[in-house]
Amino acid sequence: MDECKIIVMGFGSVGQGIVKAIKMEKDKILETLGINLKIVAVADSCSSAINPDGLNVEELLKTKSEKGKLGQCPNCGTTNTDTDVLDNVDYDVLMECTPTNIDDGEPARTLTLKAFSQGKDVVTSNKGHLALNYKELDDAAKANNVMFKFEASVGGAMPIINYAKDALSGNQIISIIGILNGTTNYILSRMTSEGSSYPDTLKESQMLGIAETNPTQDVEGIDAACKAVILSNSVLGQPATYSDVEVEGISNITSEAVSLAKENGYLIKLITEVSPKTLKVSPRLVKQGSSYDLNGTLNMATLKTDLADEVTTVGKGAGSLETASAMMTDLITILRTKN
Amino acid sequence: MDECKIIVMGFGSVGQGIVKAIKMEKDKILETLGINLKIVAVADSCSSAINPDGLNVEELLKTKSEKGKLGQCPNCGTTNTDTDVLDNVDYDVLMECTPTNIDDGEPARTLTLKAFSQGKDVVTSNKGHLALNYKELDDAAKANNVMFKFEASVGGAMPIINYAKDALSGNQIISIIGILNGTTNYILSRMTSEGSSYPDTLKESQMLGIAETNPTQDVEGIDAACKAVILSNSVLGQPATYSDVEVEGISNITSEAVSLAKENGYLIKLITEVSPKTLKVSPRLVKQGSSYDLNGTLNMATLKTDLADEVTTVGKGAGSLETASAMMTDLITILRTKN
Repeated sequence: MDECKIIVMGFGSVGQGIVKAIKMEKDKILETLGINLKIVAVADSCSSAINPDGLNVEELLKTKSEKGKLGQCPNCGTTNTDTDVLDNVDYDVLMECTPTNIDDGEPARTLTLKAFSQGKDVVTSNKGHLALNYKELDDAAKANNVMFKFEASVGGAMPIINYAKDALSGNQIISIIGILNGTTNYILSRMTSEGSSYPDTLKESQMLGIAETNPTQDVEGIDAACKAVILSNSVLGQPATYSDVEVEGISNITSEAVSLAKENGYLIKLITEVSPKTLKVSPRLVKQGSSYDLNGTLNMATLKTDLADEVTTVGKGAGSLETASAMMTDLITILRTKN
Repeated sequence: MDECKIIVMGFGSVGQGIVKAIKMEKDKILETLGINLKIVAVADSCSSAINPDGLNVEELLKTKSEKGKLGQCPNCGTTNTDTDVLDNVDYDVLMECTPTNIDDGEPARTLTLKAFSQGKDVVTSNKGHLALNYKELDDAAKANNVMFKFEASVGGAMPIINYAKDALSGNQIISIIGILNGTTNYILSRMTSEGSSYPDTLKESQMLGIAETNPTQDVEGIDAACKAVILSNSVLGQPATYSDVEVEGISNITSEAVSLAKENGYLIKLITEVSPKTLKVSPRLVKQGSSYDLNGTLNMATLKTDLADEVTTVGKGAGSLETASAMMTDLITILRTKN
């Protein structure tokens, strides 16, 4: 392999991060692996840019920023308005970063299965299809003898799946407990430091762009529950789907509860637990000064193992380039394996 | 490959951990990779146990515990009293865990080079030869087309080299700053919590077995400096040797300095910095509540990257099974690659 042709599906924050990251790391990858990365197509929900000779990243970002879509990108060989680019473009790897959809996992599920059926490897940042259809996707990847990588779906830039499966491969992973949602961690941290109420702090977070306009997925623990399912299946090898997770969010946490915890040397955090007996997202008391005492939007996870005892990983749970970094790592694993 | 014949050189704490870990993980490795692990020889400084059909781990540990050496192990096919087992035994991987020697890197250097010349892969927990002869060893491994893995040499059970090179491979690692010596971290943590003097706290640590009878390598920063050299070469790709590190230990830290720091919201920690401009081990002030605010013998490292920003890894820096866990991960990487 001396060239890798990439399709990027989804051109929001993560998709834009990916094209930037590819531009940044391209030379190093060519130098170390001898493989030339080429972005041959990028698609968002209503438009796409295609060029078999490789798209210009600066122009893609400029067009998206100015027009809000990709259709009029000046270096497009073709434009089309649906997502059948997978049929029309010659490619090697699909980098799938459409938005998480926890109702039916679409369009990620269909795109991913189509890529597998075409014998292509897939890297994703998406949680919906993994939380709903892990087994179907895993089986399809195996049946088609392709690689399916999803480090970015849990913890953004914080390595956790590859940390467990590669950097800790000598161990059996017994359980994972951590803070896997940055938005709720920010809200709870601010409620602790400022003594403010949940509704006020949520509003502040929305103004800062940390919480979304519709914050349900984050504050009700849905996002963290998806991650619990992904870790259960991929790291613990324990089959699970979204409905198996016991979920409680943070919207009922009062400033009084936060203050009372603080006075007694504790903090309230939204904790995700993945263990053989428990698949759970819930607010819990953790000790001040413990590894769970983490401010802002950071994520962390402590892995209990048979040999290494407990190890902890900490990193940025979100962000455009940060999440793209995890997808780049997955891409490099694919390139190293195929090389 | 359906069998992997292993020689364990060095049968102190780490060597004993390795044979235990192999026994614990053997079935999982056979199941997942289809490879049967077989320990064909174990050697300590004065004796060895050899059995081409595989040694019995329980008997090895019992003999060592009862006799202090391996020579009379009841299931030895042969015994010999020097380290030429590499010439006399058919093997696939050398797991090298002789003690670190910062004067000339021996016997690790000679054993490792001999194994390379025989076309064998090597996993080590040793720091001395890496700190003194990194380039020679790296070149020899490449020239002989074998794998050389040394995760256990830095941070014990805490993944850092594989964390950087595999779990963060999508990134350029810009710098590493962390606490890479558990003994000094224990001493400084106790001086902070108890207000005790350095000599008293050192004595306490020696009584608990945390500090060695001759504590120089730890307290004078030599151990951490070796780790800085290893990270500089292996993670930053920046050639360095032991004499390049600016080293200051903790033996001059007074209880007054520790108290003054504490009153002002700081802690004194022995910090190792590996960056393009700096290769340094020294006591530094860090903020209470920061990621460097870590008690006991834990190790941590924060890696500054181009895409993922800062990521942190935390784990046990020492311990028999814990250090063995890092060697097992390296062994599995070798098995996966050869499979």
